[in-house]
Amino acid sequence: MNVKAGGRTRHYRTVAFDAGRNQVLLIEQRLLPHEFKVVGTRDFRETARAIKEMVVRGAGAIGATAAYGLAQGVRAFRGEDRRKFRKHVEAVYQTLKHARPTAVDPVNAMNDVRRSMQSGKTVAEQQSLALAAAEEFANHDVQHCEAIGRHGAKLIRSGMNVLTHCNAGWLAFVDIGSATAPMYAAQGQGKKFHVFCDETRPRSQGATLTAWELAQQGISHQVIADNAAGHLMQRGKIDLVIVGSDRTLGRTGEVANKIGTYTKAVLARRHGIPFYVAIPLSTIDWNLRSGFDIPIEERDASEVLGAWGVTKSGRREYVRVANPGSGAFNAGFDVTPAELITGIITPAGIFRPRELWGKRKQLGFAG
Amino acid sequence: MNVKAGGRTRHYRTVAFDAGRNQVLLIEQRLLPHEFKVVGTRDFRETARAIKEMVVRGAGAIGATAAYGLAQGVRAFRGEDRRKFRKHVEAVYQTLKHARPTAVDPVNAMNDVRRSMQSGKTVAEQQSLALAAAEEFANHDVQHCEAIGRHGAKLIRSGMNVLTHCNAGWLAFVDIGSATAPMYAAQGQGKKFHVFCDETRPRSQGATLTAWELAQQGISHQVIADNAAGHLMQRGKIDLVIVGSDRTLGRTGEVANKIGTYTKAVLARRHGIPFYVAIPLSTIDWNLRSGFDIPIEERDASEVLGAWGVTKSGRREYVRVANPGSGAFNAGFDVTPAELITGIITPAGIFRPRELWGKRKQLGFAG
Repeated sequence: MNVKAGGRTRHYRTVAFDAGRNQVLLIEQRLLPHEFKVVGTRDFRETARAIKEMVVRGAGAIGATAAYGLAQGVRAFRGEDRRKFRKHVEAVYQTLKHARPTAVDPVNAMNDVRRSMQSGKTVAEQQSLALAAAEEFANHDVQHCEAIGRHGAKLIRSGMNVLTHCNAGWLAFVDIGSATAPMYAAQGQGKKFHVFCDETRPRSQGATLTAWELAQQGISHQVIADNAAGHLMQRGKIDLVIVGSDRTLGRTGEVANKIGTYTKAVLARRHGIPFYVAIPLSTIDWNLRSGFDIPIEERDASEVLGAWGVTKSGRREYVRVANPGSGAFNAGFDVTPAELITGIITPAGIFRPRELWGKRKQLGFAG
Repeated sequence: MNVKAGGRTRHYRTVAFDAGRNQVLLIEQRLLPHEFKVVGTRDFRETARAIKEMVVRGAGAIGATAAYGLAQGVRAFRGEDRRKFRKHVEAVYQTLKHARPTAVDPVNAMNDVRRSMQSGKTVAEQQSLALAAAEEFANHDVQHCEAIGRHGAKLIRSGMNVLTHCNAGWLAFVDIGSATAPMYAAQGQGKKFHVFCDETRPRSQGATLTAWELAQQGISHQVIADNAAGHLMQRGKIDLVIVGSDRTLGRTGEVANKIGTYTKAVLARRHGIPFYVAIPLSTIDWNLRSGFDIPIEERDASEVLGAWGVTKSGRREYVRVANPGSGAFNAGFDVTPAELITGIITPAGIFRPRELWGKRKQLGFAG
């Protein structure tokens, strides 16, 4: 998307590749929203570290980063020895895989790249194919988000107030995003609407990343406390909810997403407000048979007990907010049942959550 | 309640009076939970400033502070001139009233004190009656909270997980609190239970004040993000919700309370979890005919856009969390309809919200 930085507006992807320098280019997301900076990783180890240390986050974005990182590592190999090359590729693959061991997107992305390399006869050919495959993976991610935007934009009418939770924006993908895609597409069609961004405690990705994204694109928006959405719905101030998903169960239509998503779905149902989930196909899990089987990550208590921000003197600091003698419970995700979800916006169209299984061939289920 | 401070445990009230020094003693709540300190106000102007600057907050606590502040001012008068004395009393009353112009508790409390003074014949007699009336007001506040605790404790069984929102604890009253009263009473009966404290963004009174209170009393508790209660309910981890109220409509049973209360009530209903509101009688509004007529205070956006806490180096600082270019919507309260409330715990017993009007004589309605 376009970003105003250093006095001019330019188009950026969250993840890109500089073939001349053999560098993966990443928006340094840990500095946002207070500073915008693109960093280039000099080798695949640095790329793995960027994934691990959350320079880049979000399913689509870390998938593309791993794909580019694999190509980067593969391209750094010197020589013609096929056996040594195979060992090298494996080492790069493992390093990138272990950067975020529970994520599936980097593995799927790198498997794509490895498969494509196979048709190359020489090391040089395989190196070239690896980069082409990584580029293709990234371009597909963008095309899928564009398609989500095309379908989802129909839900947004001028004058609407839209609620979103957390950040399922272009910063979580290569570009455009999932939950934000309908907003960007609707804006492109000249529609005027307002977005309420749940701040999304404890990590505040709504207040930081989503608010930054919307401000960059000039979309009218306000941050709200997570406590405020119910009140706004009660007063008729929210017309539509669009969120993203970390994992969507293809068999049941249940959606795992950032903690608090379920609460917004319950509130939306009470007020008869449409509740949509925007997803790329890669987040559909065709295996699990119940949302209760989705492992819910418990994260560090310090996230709930305090906040990261910028002090008056401009330093980025963590402040302890809560009583020093108290602990916290910090679940990262929750599960929203199909019955509360009006529709799932996918690159292949909008479906009712319980339709996914019936449409599984169309939605890329290989099983 | 008991507080561990300076190596020993002592009983404190949130608001007390030192007759020898003619000082109102207040727990300096702006330092909590990071520091515990009692301050004495040297004259009624300092007492008014303490109310205005939120050294003390909470309906019961500011009522008692105003009552004591009036007695303090009245007692500082020197001489026997009845006319000058009347003018002085009026000036003290107005100063304290304007410290928090929209609050009703200080006015009601001071009217009590003024009424009691009337039977005094001399200035000295009236001064003495003023202090006695202020003490009586404070003691009544404590007795009402004790009665709330007695009734509410029946709802808590050992092994339960209780959710509360914001701070309706002893720090908001003279002692014991409203929503916390059943917890303290149940603990006194030897019951063992666990409390989840909503952090209660944007001002985080749950993470700071309620967590501090529960820690002082040794009650098992954890702070949670406001986003987490729905997930906990879904997983069967919450058995009971008890919150306070800023205003309860006697005619309809609607409850205005800290933003986010309504959301918890909607979630509790979905999961069949009892949802109780604990109130002193003074918060019942017998006039308004609809919750939509309750004015909802819109507060400064900075509360939502950042957080107050303590840095690693021990300084209390505000950090800006949200995107610097974004604004916020910040409603202070929301309204929960009667149908979502299982019961209202009052000093006179537990009632269904729509029973209040029928019991209005018993509940102190003078109209």
